Amino acid sequence: MQDACVSLLSDFGTRDVYVGVMKAVLARIAPRALLIDLTHEIPRGDIRQAAFRLWQALPYVPAGTIFLAVVDPGVGTSRRPLAVRAEGFSCVGPDNGIFTYVLANQRNARAVVIDRPGLSANATFHGRDVFAPAAGLLAAGTELERIGAEAADPARIPWPLLSLHSRDHSVRGEALFADWFGNIITSIGRLIRLDSNVRLEPWVPSEWAPLEVTSSRFRVLLGGGREIPVVRTYGEVRAGQPLAYIGSDGLLEIAVNQGSAAEALGLAAGSEINLSWQ
Amino acid sequence: MQDACVSLLSDFGTRDVYVGVMKAVLARIAPRALLIDLTHEIPRGDIRQAAFRLWQALPYVPAGTIFLAVVDPGVGTSRRPLAVRAEGFSCVGPDNGIFTYVLANQRNARAVVIDRPGLSANATFHGRDVFAPAAGLLAAGTELERIGAEAADPARIPWPLLSLHSRDHSVRGEALFADWFGNIITSIGRLIRLDSNVRLEPWVPSEWAPLEVTSSRFRVLLGGGREIPVVRTYGEVRAGQPLAYIGSDGLLEIAVNQGSAAEALGLAAGSEINLSWQ
Amino acid sequence: MQDACVSLLSDFGTRDVYVGVMKAVLARIAPRALLIDLTHEIPRGDIRQAAFRLWQALPYVPAGTIFLAVVDPGVGTSRRPLAVRAEGFSCVGPDNGIFTYVLANQRNARAVVIDRPGLSANATFHGRDVFAPAAGLLAAGTELERIGAEAADPARIPWPLLSLHSRDHSVRGEALFADWFGNIITSIGRLIRLDSNVRLEPWVPSEWAPLEVTSSRFRVLLGGGREIPVVRTYGEVRAGQPLAYIGSDGLLEIAVNQGSAAEALGLAAGSEINLSWQ
Repeated sequence: MQDACVSLLSDFGTRDVYVGVMKAVLARIAPRALLIDLTHEIPRGDIRQAAFRLWQALPYVPAGTIFLAVVDPGVGTSRRPLAVRAEGFSCVGPDNGIFTYVLANQRNARAVVIDRPGLSANATFHGRDVFAPAAGLLAAGTELERIGAEAADPARIPWPLLSLHSRDHSVRGEALFADWFGNIITSIGRLIRLDSNVRLEPWVPSEWAPLEVTSSRFRVLLGGGREIPVVRTYGEVRAGQPLAYIGSDGLLEIAVNQGSAAEALGLAAGSEINLSWQ
Repeated sequence: MQDACVSLLSDFGTRDVYVGVMKAVLARIAPRALLIDLTHEIPRGDIRQAAFRLWQALPYVPAGTIFLAVVDPGVGTSRRPLAVRAEGFSCVGPDNGIFTYVLANQRNARAVVIDRPGLSANATFHGRDVFAPAAGLLAAGTELERIGAEAADPARIPWPLLSLHSRDHSVRGEALFADWFGNIITSIGRLIRLDSNVRLEPWVPSEWAPLEVTSSRFRVLLGGGREIPVVRTYGEVRAGQPLAYIGSDGLLEIAVNQGSAAEALGLAAGSEINLSWQ
Repeated sequence: MQDACVSLLSDFGTRDVYVGVMKAVLARIAPRALLIDLTHEIPRGDIRQAAFRLWQALPYVPAGTIFLAVVDPGVGTSRRPLAVRAEGFSCVGPDNGIFTYVLANQRNARAVVIDRPGLSANATFHGRDVFAPAAGLLAAGTELERIGAEAADPARIPWPLLSLHSRDHSVRGEALFADWFGNIITSIGRLIRLDSNVRLEPWVPSEWAPLEVTSSRFRVLLGGGREIPVVRTYGEVRAGQPLAYIGSDGLLEIAVNQGSAAEALGLAAGSEINLSWQ
C-alpha cells in the first residue's frame, strides 16, 4: 500500500541541499510516500505568503495529504513545533500561523506539540530534525497522539484586508503577492451581485466562488487613482495595458497584457486595491 | 502495477504553487504515475522553444510516457485543448503547435479535443482544470477516445530555418535558444559528408545523427562576419574563445570555453548561423 | 519491491531538460527507483562545492542510496567515468574528486571504471549517456563488477583549510560557500574544549559533532580585522548585525541577522576565517 502524499513548501530555495535532505529523511521513514513540491521559493520568512500558498493548493491535494511547511523565522526561539490533523489532511510545521488559512473552516482539527524521542533538536534546522521526521511518521500511519501532546491555541495570523463600503459602491482589499508572471493576486473575492445590489461575503479561505463581476460597470482603482477595467480575457485590452479579472482561485487579479503588473503598476504585497461599481 | 510516466513541461516557473497543484490533481487520478519534470522555465509563451525541448527529451522517455506540456498564451481564447496518442507516447496540452516536432515522424497519431464532464473549465488555469486531469486519465489507463472527439488538423508551427547552399559550400540555419550554460543550440544538423561532397539532409525532428564534421575545413560564420572553428572538444580552444561542435542532440552548438556564448557573441533565438567548408 | 533511492546533484540548472532527461533514462532501467534532487544549481564546474554538498546530505539519505553526481568540467577528456560501492551507499559520476568527502571514512570502498556495452559514449552529455544508465543499473540491482573493471586510485581533491594555532589561541579556516540565505558555511568544526584547553580535531567529512563553543570568550575574526561574536541564536544580535554560530552540519557558520553575510561582509568561497579565544 502506498504511504500518504506529502506536499512540501518552504523558503529554502533550490540552490542548497536542504530540501533534498528533508525528503531523504522523510523517505527513510515513509519510503512509499508521494512527495509533491508546492514551492520552495517563498520569500524568506514570509509566513503570510506561505499561508496563502497552502490555501491555494488545499482543494487540489489528494485525500490524506500531509502539508510539510517550513517558513520559520522563529527557529531557535520558543515557538512550538506543531502537527495538526484536520478533516482530509494534516499539517506539520512551526506554530507561527502558517496554517491559519488552510485550517480556517476546520472545526474539529486536533493539534499537538511535536515531542517524541528523536524528534527534538536544539539545532537550527528543524525542517530536517523535527518536521520531516514527524511528517514521515504521519505518512507512514503513526497516530497524531503518538508524536506529541495536545497543543492549546495554535498561533494565527490576521486575515487580509477586505472591507465593503456599500454607500461608496466599493470594496477595499489589498495585494497579496505577485506570481511568476507578475500578476497581482488580491484579497478581493466572494462578491455576489443580486439584482441591483452587490453583496460581499467574507473572504473565506478554503472556499471560493467566482466573483460575479459580469458587467462593464466594475472598475478597479489603485492607490494613485489609476483605473483598470474588469474583463473576462486578456484579449479585451491591448498589449501593455492593465486589466483585472477573476483568477483561478476565485480572487480578483490584476495583470498587464504581455507584461508584468507588479513592475508596470508598482504593486507589491499590501498595496491597497479598490473595486468599485456604478 | 505502476501507472504510466508523465513528463511535465511548462512556462509556470517554480515560484508559485501552480506546478505542484497540477501534480496534485494528477496524483488524485493516477496515484502511481511517475512524474518527471522536464522544465518549467520555458520563457513565457515561447511555444517554439517548448516544442524543441519536448523533441530533445523524446528519445529518452520511458515507453508510454505522457507529455503534459502547458505553454499556453491562448488560454481563454477558442484554441482547443488537445490529447494525442502517438506510437510510444501521448501528448496533452493546448492545440497551438507545441507538439509539432515530437509528432513530426508519426503517421498514425490520433488526436482528440478534450471534452469530458469535469474536464472543461472557463477558468484561466487549464493546466490544472483540463490538462492535468486529462493526463491523469490517460496515465491511469483511460482510452483516448473516452476523453474527447477526434480533432481535425492539429495546429503546427514552422520548422526552424535550415537551407543548403551547395555552390557557396554553406548551410544557413538559426540559433534556437541558449541553454543554462549560455551555449547556443542551432538548427544545423544531419549534414553528411561523403568523400569530397557534403550532403545535408533535412532537419528531421525525432531523428538525429551526428553531423559528420571531421576536418578543419569547416567554419561557422556569424551574422557580423565572426568566424568560429568547429572542433571536437572544448580543450581545442583557449579559455574565453568561441568554438562550435556537435552537441548531444546531434545539432551544431556554439559555445565559449569557460564562458557564455549567448553573452559573449550576442546570440539569441533567431540569430543567423552559417556553416561553411572549403 | 522498490528499487533503491537515487540522489541527484549537478550543475545543470533547471532551465533545460537535461535533468529530466537523466531521470527519464534512469526510469527506463529502474522504474521504481525513488529519485531525490539534492540540487542542480552547483556553480558551473565547482567540484569542491559539489563534494561538500554530497557530504552534507550523506548522513540523511536512505540506506543503499546511489549518489548520481555530475559536475564534470572534464567531460570529453580522458577523465574516467566512475562507480563506487561504499558501506551503505554508492556513487556514480566523473572521476574528478567529487566523491572525496563522502568516501573519506570508507576503508573498503570498491571503485570501477564504467565500461559496458551501451554505457560508453563519445558525446558531450555523459550524465545522460553514461552516468544515468549506470546509476539505473545499480538501482535495479546489478552488481558493481558487472558495469566495469576495478579503478585504481580514484581522484581526490584537497581538504579545506583548517589549522590550529595553540599559542595564538586561534583556529584558521576558510569560507566554503554561501547558502541561499547568504549564510557562510566555513571549514571550522570539531573544536573540542577541555578545561582550560581548546582542542581541535581534524575536520573529518562524514562525521561531525558540534563545536563546543559555549562562552563569550570566542570571537570570529575576518580577513580585514572585523570581529564577530559567536552566539547560540540570531536573537542575540540586532537586525543587520553579523553573528557566528554552529550550523546544522556541525560547522561554524557566519550570518547577518535578517540579511546576507555573503553580501554584507564580502565573503566568498576561500575567504580566510579565524576563530580565536581568550
